[in-house]
Amino acid sequence: MARFFMAGTNIEGGMAIIRGRDAEHVRVLRLRPGEDVIICDGEGTDYKCRLVYADKEQAEAEVLEVVRCPAEPTVKVMLLCGLPKGDRVDYIIQKGVEAGADEIRFFNCERCIARPETPEKKLERWQRIAEEAAKQSGRGIIPQVAWAGDFVQALDAAIKKELGLFMYETGEREALNTVLEANKEAKTAAIITGPEGGFAEYEAKLAKSCGLHVCSMGERILRCETAPIVALTATMYATGNLA
Amino acid sequence: MARFFMAGTNIEGGMAIIRGRDAEHVRVLRLRPGEDVIICDGEGTDYKCRLVYADKEQAEAEVLEVVRCPAEPTVKVMLLCGLPKGDRVDYIIQKGVEAGADEIRFFNCERCIARPETPEKKLERWQRIAEEAAKQSGRGIIPQVAWAGDFVQALDAAIKKELGLFMYETGEREALNTVLEANKEAKTAAIITGPEGGFAEYEAKLAKSCGLHVCSMGERILRCETAPIVALTATMYATGNLA
Repeated sequence: MARFFMAGTNIEGGMAIIRGRDAEHVRVLRLRPGEDVIICDGEGTDYKCRLVYADKEQAEAEVLEVVRCPAEPTVKVMLLCGLPKGDRVDYIIQKGVEAGADEIRFFNCERCIARPETPEKKLERWQRIAEEAAKQSGRGIIPQVAWAGDFVQALDAAIKKELGLFMYETGEREALNTVLEANKEAKTAAIITGPEGGFAEYEAKLAKSCGLHVCSMGERILRCETAPIVALTATMYATGNLA
Repeated sequence: MARFFMAGTNIEGGMAIIRGRDAEHVRVLRLRPGEDVIICDGEGTDYKCRLVYADKEQAEAEVLEVVRCPAEPTVKVMLLCGLPKGDRVDYIIQKGVEAGADEIRFFNCERCIARPETPEKKLERWQRIAEEAAKQSGRGIIPQVAWAGDFVQALDAAIKKELGLFMYETGEREALNTVLEANKEAKTAAIITGPEGGFAEYEAKLAKSCGLHVCSMGERILRCETAPIVALTATMYATGNLA
């Protein structure tokens, strides 16, 4: 069923008014009055609607049912990734949204190769990738993509969550499954992963001293764009959000 | 530590002889006598070695220790994927190897858009992607990439495994986590995922009647290149291979 994201203010008195790009989308999909669509408020609520009118500029739909979007996980996971080069960022955003991330932020750290002077300028493009992935995968929200700043700012964002995971490739670590098993009921979590060259030792120490779980995902070395998706999938699995 | 794949026949009497492309690799990495390398026999065994000699054509290394490669999962998972278009294949191979697949096969089915006349011709390129990913991620084997043939041949390959999972987007399904929890001890498994358009209903019925578990991964719709990686990661997590 076609799916539209619309701010709640366009849904009033049991009717949804579809304008602009979304009305254009209705036209492109050749949707006619009588057909059903899902209008999502972008905050996890789905409005099942039936089209009653559609012209070039505007479409109107009657609200049949209001439900919590079943695709939204019970745990809100923030991905925090050391900024990688080039299209690896796009990949993390697209797959992260599909796999259920609530929010995705990038940051600078010791071994980042990519160091854009104005990362904020890329946000508009990154957000569009998230929006497209959210629509395609049937999400109930459009996960926000943001620039977290430096490593300390990333840690600061992570420690505000119930569960903070820091993925590290070497040294003394906790097994990811042990940590997740013990935190199945968490409602908010953060997953921090590194850039191409991984994290410096002092960064891992800092993460640990901030109370984050420094975790191992086994002996296979994952690329910087694969690690966040694998860790996120494990979190979704452990919290019952992959069933 | 540098990692080389070599057939076991080049390791004799406590010495490993490195020739050809691998010797070239030793040279490029500027490895010198006294430095340690890992030589993997491609069947899950690692030989920890110390270089004793290196020239342009050949290098020799003394075997210090023989161990089971710690990166190899305890469960051998075959990915069976309905052939997608273009670089999605490359993606499945690269990420599948990183995430721990034992073997990757592609097949034709009802809704495949890509229908190469001679898919076998692509195997050499696909295998190179697997080899590179295996080296990079520290695998103990180079997972084989193969052409499975048609849908029935894919089912036939899957039912030979202890655990057969068929990922399907709609209708009556088992929850993936329930199935995995009940099969934690499986030593062999197959995961079947569809092409861009998913599976036809009759294909899902056929899979079920063959005894495969028709599984759901929740309400988020995963792209055809994402689904095998998410299902594989869940399997690795459930079997204790992500810790």
